[in-house]
Amino acid sequence: MSDRRTVITVWCGYVSSYTSYLCVFNAFNLYIVSANSVLCNKVNNMIFKALRSKARLISRHMNGSNFSGRTQSAIRIIGSTVCIGGTAAAIAYHLLCRNEVHMAAVGTVAKFASVSQYMAEPITRRQVLDANRNDMKCRMEELVMKIQTDFCRSLEAEENFGKKFLVDRWERKEGGGGITCVLQDGDVFEKAGVNISVVHGNLPKGAIQQMRSRGKQLAEGELPFFAVGVSAVIHPRNPMVPTIHFNYRYFEVTDSTGEKQWWFGGGTDLTPYYLNENDANHFHRTLKEACDPHDATYYPKFKEWCDKYFFIPHRNESRGVGGIFFDDLDGPDAERAFDFVSSCAHSVIPSYLPLVRQHKNDPYGDRHRQWQLLRRGRYVEFNLIYDRGTKFGLYTPGARYESILMSLPLNAKWEYMNIPDQGTEEAVIIEVLKKPKNWLNL
Amino acid sequence: MSDRRTVITVWCGYVSSYTSYLCVFNAFNLYIVSANSVLCNKVNNMIFKALRSKARLISRHMNGSNFSGRTQSAIRIIGSTVCIGGTAAAIAYHLLCRNEVHMAAVGTVAKFASVSQYMAEPITRRQVLDANRNDMKCRMEELVMKIQTDFCRSLEAEENFGKKFLVDRWERKEGGGGITCVLQDGDVFEKAGVNISVVHGNLPKGAIQQMRSRGKQLAEGELPFFAVGVSAVIHPRNPMVPTIHFNYRYFEVTDSTGEKQWWFGGGTDLTPYYLNENDANHFHRTLKEACDPHDATYYPKFKEWCDKYFFIPHRNESRGVGGIFFDDLDGPDAERAFDFVSSCAHSVIPSYLPLVRQHKNDPYGDRHRQWQLLRRGRYVEFNLIYDRGTKFGLYTPGARYESILMSLPLNAKWEYMNIPDQGTEEAVIIEVLKKPKNWLNL
Repeated sequence: MSDRRTVITVWCGYVSSYTSYLCVFNAFNLYIVSANSVLCNKVNNMIFKALRSKARLISRHMNGSNFSGRTQSAIRIIGSTVCIGGTAAAIAYHLLCRNEVHMAAVGTVAKFASVSQYMAEPITRRQVLDANRNDMKCRMEELVMKIQTDFCRSLEAEENFGKKFLVDRWERKEGGGGITCVLQDGDVFEKAGVNISVVHGNLPKGAIQQMRSRGKQLAEGELPFFAVGVSAVIHPRNPMVPTIHFNYRYFEVTDSTGEKQWWFGGGTDLTPYYLNENDANHFHRTLKEACDPHDATYYPKFKEWCDKYFFIPHRNESRGVGGIFFDDLDGPDAERAFDFVSSCAHSVIPSYLPLVRQHKNDPYGDRHRQWQLLRRGRYVEFNLIYDRGTKFGLYTPGARYESILMSLPLNAKWEYMNIPDQGTEEAVIIEVLKKPKNWLNL
Repeated sequence: MSDRRTVITVWCGYVSSYTSYLCVFNAFNLYIVSANSVLCNKVNNMIFKALRSKARLISRHMNGSNFSGRTQSAIRIIGSTVCIGGTAAAIAYHLLCRNEVHMAAVGTVAKFASVSQYMAEPITRRQVLDANRNDMKCRMEELVMKIQTDFCRSLEAEENFGKKFLVDRWERKEGGGGITCVLQDGDVFEKAGVNISVVHGNLPKGAIQQMRSRGKQLAEGELPFFAVGVSAVIHPRNPMVPTIHFNYRYFEVTDSTGEKQWWFGGGTDLTPYYLNENDANHFHRTLKEACDPHDATYYPKFKEWCDKYFFIPHRNESRGVGGIFFDDLDGPDAERAFDFVSSCAHSVIPSYLPLVRQHKNDPYGDRHRQWQLLRRGRYVEFNLIYDRGTKFGLYTPGARYESILMSLPLNAKWEYMNIPDQGTEEAVIIEVLKKPKNWLNL
């Protein structure tokens, strides 16, 4: 019994010393130049493993009772001391964490990161943002940071065991950077990625070609650009909760004469695994309500555009039940276009969260899980073969592929010739994917 | 005891009656026009399930001894009779099966399928093949059918519970067709697809562009083409067994003046999940031995081409440990080019099967399975984003996407920022994928 108590104390000691180490290590991070938060995680893991194996070794010895009573007492005292110290340090660490301090990462010299109300410090320096409150670039950066934070926090609130987003703030050698937030293997969300990026530089050739091919008039020569956007894909665990994707972006291109072109793009769309008409109606209605005050033609026009865009030609089916999608929006004026985009971005949470809450505890079986995995395979097909954003991102030199590919599900499946039997729930959703529906009977 | 014997007899009776049904059903198939072999499988499964549940019901009754002695005797007699009849029918069915009779499928009126030594009847009519034994198109079609059959049979022989390939013979509205063989959810092979296609028509615009961009001189106007090839991707279950891919093809294009261009293309490459240097050496040595008698420069040249082709730029890593890859081979003459391609195609089994046999029963844990799934995600990335064959196939109108996408694994996984710890077995394979190795120290 005494042995067992000693072992527990030693264990606690080790756990506490790990916690203390964590505090020191992370506090230290605030002041040092760190290469990469991933590196920090690795060091953390290494040290944790080393401590654990040491503790195990001691446990084994103790159980074998190879220690004298005096040695055991000494270990007990050391263990208890470390335990108390560790707890105090853990509390300090927790308080530090609440300030949500993050580091700049990926091959750049990290700046001292001050406290922020967002997921991380903005990519553009706070002073620059504050000094240019009327500049659309800065306004859009503030908007996407707010949207990212609100959305991440509302998803975190749905998790039952306190799972949080991992935050990676990264900088781009060629200019700008981004904040990638990923929640993986949660109990409600299997994989959720919410990304913002603020990048500038010269337009890559591929991008110029792509823009011209859809009708943009762009001058010859080098074209400096600025792009800011938020993009998210949420893959829930329960097959009764649909997957959602949204993306809102602002683009500026300046030609050699100094003439500036700007436009907005974006959209929100839903991919259910099983059809629930109420969900689809609620989703579309919320989007319509966000569009209508700005222009009554927007919702029907952008709904159709969405159906056309999120389409998998080789399977002749849509990716999901649609939503809205638009690009090259440069009217009626910058102010009103921004207001519209802001409304759309703010409608994501009310369009989606009620669906999560309603279905996250729905019962389901292996049949539903298998179907969900197959449908996720289709999602991968669309994103890797057809999605303009993904293709453009991956073909751009220096692109951060981990942020681009966070949209892919944790698990996906491909079966040869899986065709649902007529009359099943699986056949019902396929039916809707083959013939996009006018959800609001307009 | 007597009860138990009765139950067994009834069971045998039911199994036999299922076998008898199978014989009748399949014999019947020889003479009827059937829509699709998948449909046949579905009917088979349905009837089998119905029979099984009936047999279970009777077993339960018998165990409960609700039957009189006379009823039990009657069932025993009927059971035994069906048993004997079933066995005779099973033998007849087996003899029929040895002739490997298959049906034409997918949206075409099936032809009466005569006996073939291959997986299915050839796409080009047997009489045409026989009458044109010197024509390269016909010789290549015979070759790919033989390669497909040999490879499928050797894979089936590795399965422990008799799992067989599903055979789909399909015809293409625009001209030609193919034979798709898929083995899914085997105990040794998680998913194995071996496909041949024999297609002709006019070259789609995208194909002409692609061919010109790699240097082919093609005339303007409509370009009739003929293409025949075999293509396979095998994803084993055990993570210690590598994935293999091979593809050998022959192409003919005729311009409006009647001038004909022809060329061969192909390759074999290996994608291990864990590095085994002996396996990689054996694999490359076998390929080299197939190349060397034809041209000593082929192996080194095509090995390098393979490393360049199966490369995932956004991750800056190769798909696997390479092999050989070549295209546009139109020399020294058609005869010798065909001999070379034939040698390569025949080297697939000796290059790969020994690896399967050696590792299919290797012990492995969840850690290895998870890594295998992640690597399969990379395989999907390559195939859907970069593979010329897949992209070309999917962009072609009327393409049979189920045959093109059979290359995708049954299961795949994407984790954000999964970077193996230094010194682990996972890091070792990544090292080799980042820096392709000269396996044979040439």
